[in-house]
Amino acid sequence: MVSDSEVSLRGVIPPLVTPIDAAGDIDRRSLERLIAFQLDAGADGVFLGGSTGEVALLDSARLRTVTEVAVGAVAGAVPVLVGAVDTGTRRVVEHARLVAAAGADAVVVTAPFYIEPHPAEVVEHFRQVAAAVDVPVIAYDIPSAVGTRLTPGIVAALAAEKLVIALKDSSGDLAHFREVLRRTGGELPTLTGSELLADTAVELGAAGIVPGLGNVDPHGYVRLHRAARDGDRATARAEQERLARLFRIVTVADRTRIGVTAGALGAFKAALALRGVIADPATNPPLLPLDADEIRAVSALLEEAGLRAVP
Amino acid sequence: MVSDSEVSLRGVIPPLVTPIDAAGDIDRRSLERLIAFQLDAGADGVFLGGSTGEVALLDSARLRTVTEVAVGAVAGAVPVLVGAVDTGTRRVVEHARLVAAAGADAVVVTAPFYIEPHPAEVVEHFRQVAAAVDVPVIAYDIPSAVGTRLTPGIVAALAAEKLVIALKDSSGDLAHFREVLRRTGGELPTLTGSELLADTAVELGAAGIVPGLGNVDPHGYVRLHRAARDGDRATARAEQERLARLFRIVTVADRTRIGVTAGALGAFKAALALRGVIADPATNPPLLPLDADEIRAVSALLEEAGLRAVP
Amino acid sequence: MVSDSEVSLRGVIPPLVTPIDAAGDIDRRSLERLIAFQLDAGADGVFLGGSTGEVALLDSARLRTVTEVAVGAVAGAVPVLVGAVDTGTRRVVEHARLVAAAGADAVVVTAPFYIEPHPAEVVEHFRQVAAAVDVPVIAYDIPSAVGTRLTPGIVAALAAEKLVIALKDSSGDLAHFREVLRRTGGELPTLTGSELLADTAVELGAAGIVPGLGNVDPHGYVRLHRAARDGDRATARAEQERLARLFRIVTVADRTRIGVTAGALGAFKAALALRGVIADPATNPPLLPLDADEIRAVSALLEEAGLRAVP
Amino acid sequence: MVSDSEVSLRGVIPPLVTPIDAAGDIDRRSLERLIAFQLDAGADGVFLGGSTGEVALLDSARLRTVTEVAVGAVAGAVPVLVGAVDTGTRRVVEHARLVAAAGADAVVVTAPFYIEPHPAEVVEHFRQVAAAVDVPVIAYDIPSAVGTRLTPGIVAALAAEKLVIALKDSSGDLAHFREVLRRTGGELPTLTGSELLADTAVELGAAGIVPGLGNVDPHGYVRLHRAARDGDRATARAEQERLARLFRIVTVADRTRIGVTAGALGAFKAALALRGVIADPATNPPLLPLDADEIRAVSALLEEAGLRAVP
Repeated sequence: MVSDSEVSLRGVIPPLVTPIDAAGDIDRRSLERLIAFQLDAGADGVFLGGSTGEVALLDSARLRTVTEVAVGAVAGAVPVLVGAVDTGTRRVVEHARLVAAAGADAVVVTAPFYIEPHPAEVVEHFRQVAAAVDVPVIAYDIPSAVGTRLTPGIVAALAAEKLVIALKDSSGDLAHFREVLRRTGGELPTLTGSELLADTAVELGAAGIVPGLGNVDPHGYVRLHRAARDGDRATARAEQERLARLFRIVTVADRTRIGVTAGALGAFKAALALRGVIADPATNPPLLPLDADEIRAVSALLEEAGLRAVP
Repeated sequence: MVSDSEVSLRGVIPPLVTPIDAAGDIDRRSLERLIAFQLDAGADGVFLGGSTGEVALLDSARLRTVTEVAVGAVAGAVPVLVGAVDTGTRRVVEHARLVAAAGADAVVVTAPFYIEPHPAEVVEHFRQVAAAVDVPVIAYDIPSAVGTRLTPGIVAALAAEKLVIALKDSSGDLAHFREVLRRTGGELPTLTGSELLADTAVELGAAGIVPGLGNVDPHGYVRLHRAARDGDRATARAEQERLARLFRIVTVADRTRIGVTAGALGAFKAALALRGVIADPATNPPLLPLDADEIRAVSALLEEAGLRAVP
Repeated sequence: MVSDSEVSLRGVIPPLVTPIDAAGDIDRRSLERLIAFQLDAGADGVFLGGSTGEVALLDSARLRTVTEVAVGAVAGAVPVLVGAVDTGTRRVVEHARLVAAAGADAVVVTAPFYIEPHPAEVVEHFRQVAAAVDVPVIAYDIPSAVGTRLTPGIVAALAAEKLVIALKDSSGDLAHFREVLRRTGGELPTLTGSELLADTAVELGAAGIVPGLGNVDPHGYVRLHRAARDGDRATARAEQERLARLFRIVTVADRTRIGVTAGALGAFKAALALRGVIADPATNPPLLPLDADEIRAVSALLEEAGLRAVP
Repeated sequence: MVSDSEVSLRGVIPPLVTPIDAAGDIDRRSLERLIAFQLDAGADGVFLGGSTGEVALLDSARLRTVTEVAVGAVAGAVPVLVGAVDTGTRRVVEHARLVAAAGADAVVVTAPFYIEPHPAEVVEHFRQVAAAVDVPVIAYDIPSAVGTRLTPGIVAALAAEKLVIALKDSSGDLAHFREVLRRTGGELPTLTGSELLADTAVELGAAGIVPGLGNVDPHGYVRLHRAARDGDRATARAEQERLARLFRIVTVADRTRIGVTAGALGAFKAALALRGVIADPATNPPLLPLDADEIRAVSALLEEAGLRAVP
């Protein structure tokens, strides 16, 4: 574990999938291999137990295992972020303590959900979580999952009280993103969760990017990030376009048969299995798997993007 | 614990609030007193760890304590239902086993949330939960909290596979409720979570009612239920009207200051504290409390409804 | 046209479909035949230019023609209600004057849409419409179409200022419906738009019912209404159950091919064509038609419901 | 009127407010003055009868007057776009013909609303509108108002059939915007309706910008557009930041008193009145006006942005 003051949240920090085996247990070797793949590609951090990591579908034991394996595999090379994603304050504290004890460098926390909170209650949530755990907290804005926005006003309040050390913005709303930068004077590192606006977000001031598709093509996102950061817009744009075409893997699944989450996360895992990074594309219940045709479609898009099996 | 086959889900089964003390710990004496108050009024069951029980805001230890205290206080007199409310299958199984071990007679389970499930995945969720736990499962339709409907088609599938022993319908949608009855041939006991349509739901075939406001006035809902069940519509209607006026306590809070959940659950607890049933109206973080004016408004509505302190 | 004070809004008032011919013109003969069919069945009023009447898809000329034909065909026997459904106050006034000039006895008006109105602006909308037109106004709560609720508070304000003579409630929310009755002291006639809760709504105090399915089986809804009104619950319930099964015609269409509106309105028209009441099941653009399989499914459900061609 | 093939949709094309006088009639002099102000600032086109132009709140006569006055005032200098915004195909055709007859160079059309259309029905809508009117059609994606997206797939279909000559994207969703560019090969001119992402949209390939705030500060948006188009990012960014601060005028209104539409459109008109461009800040019913404090807040933000009365 890196010391708190050293948690640097810049660059490419993919939200890793959680490989499991046929029995549903965490596949430690696949997770280690995935992390090695990411570090080798130049990832600046890893984020376990995010939405892409199926955090909502893991129990406590599996979340602990994921964290321990990741902390071991990373071995201090880069920060290890872990999601403490749950409905209410006490539940989040319970998860946050669990992953902190397992070695996480920071915990990633959403607005409360299931309940309908007032903005003042969202801030209170972060206030109590921050007070209760020993690792820094990263705010996670993901309205598609939790139904509540971390508005620029809320984020500014969190920053002013120093309750969080960064924002992960998965809202897809660049106008809000820019308003956050404006309100926080750019002092709060902001990470975008967008696969499709990563170049733009970096050009506008994002400290880093957290793209789910970065599981599949970390080299591409590292190139994109370096180019966007260094002002080489042509290169950043070209990578972004290639990655946008690859991102079509998340829509190959037949939505009359399986859900949107299953289709997206199943595609990431299928792609990683096809590339030989993880052993099994299985997702956690209740998600249903891609079928053979859909996996072939993923394979075709990998090929089109120039992605081969990892040696 | 009553044996599985004996779990009778009929009548008035209020979803109990979770009393806490100033330190945030479960207030066992208040919970015992609340349960005694309910049983004395004629409740046919109790439901702990529901939305009204702030299940989303309790950690595992508190949920276990609540269950243990309730099981002890009920002492087999009526069924004890407990919510295993969480985002995904493995998490729900973890909670369900915890509360089953603590003595719950049945667990109450919603559709998965945070993720976007396909109906087939919702059914798969209940299939795996039912297979993994030793107590019967009750399906809980609460789209306002989880964003997904348990459609009549889903409920019919759950009933056909005997994955659940009942439905708690908190959708507020009586057309769906009736379609469920139609599709299941009336063989699946259906409980309504509505405070305001309790009489109508019983007249239409609901096996029981699970009104949050039943915390505050169980005698009223018992009278309403008995009258509606026995075809005494005038009495049922009169009680329903009185209770509808009392239900205005959930809207006394200033919504520009606290959220809708805080306003409703805070009002139930304030009313119970005013009636002397529980010691402290405190809610769990991050919910903010009612202020003095709002508590006075609750008090006035109690008085208007003819409700006094419990001896 | 009946005089204003005589506009009686009680009983069965189906929201009629708008028959068109292959060229897209109003099919006057079919509309006359439909109205005769309704009056013969015992309808207590007719509602043209509602959602079921494809009001959103008609231009001014067609709306005028529909009104004129209906007024002529009804010949004062029952009230003729016509929708003045549009986004803003001036547009609604324009439509309301048009249909009033064509002989409508009352106009039916929703909350403003396209814009996001405040409740005070919704009330102001009805205030200005009522002041600008010479026929009485009926408030139309249809949040699924306009995105804004006519809350019980809004309806109570409209009733207190006598801006409307009735409410058509197509919200599907019986708790709100009852709160409206409570707030208005039952003095504002309330009509339910529900096909599936018609019996219950009448038992709870609805003055009348406005079921789209009443196009297809007016005799059934008239029997249902009379029974519910007269306290014969068994008969009302039996009719409601039969009609609920018939209502499955609105879901026979393949939703991956045409929209929900096309599926529902297309089914009503297909059923009327199959029964020989109207000549052509065509809907207005941009709605796409049912295909042959879907029309066969409608036919099978008609048969199951015991409905034959009208002599 | 410019000839069809000459309709150039590039640059700054503000969606103009519709000035009215105290009697609610179109204030021709103010509208002429507003247009002169825009042309003088360098606007490359004008868009009447958009959402900012309160199109949903105008009747046919006022929409015709607005179009005629604008066509006269512009006198062929730049294209005049006019909204034909309505629920269904026939209504849109009726409006489109009216404004085309009054001299509009192109009509701006949304997805159908009030109904729930299938994507194939959205395309059919544009197909029939395009066939029925003599001026080119611009597709208008504004899901916040109509509830339906013009997805990249729909837009690509519209472009492939040459049903529209451009897209106005008011979705705020830059990922979709980029996907549209990708799908159409950049051949369909795309205009962004965003006040806050105008610089980014131009850098990403937008042909033009249609910012409501451009009513108030056209000079600023012209500078922004020229800089962004010419690759001078520092200047574009600085203007965008200044304009973002000015855009706070749309949130000064007390949302517990008036709606979000009233607050935004009222602020634009108040600012124009304060700058002396239009005579009266009145909005159309049912929108309620800003109060004196709110107008003072608008005035302060104008001053902060360096905007003075127009000579």
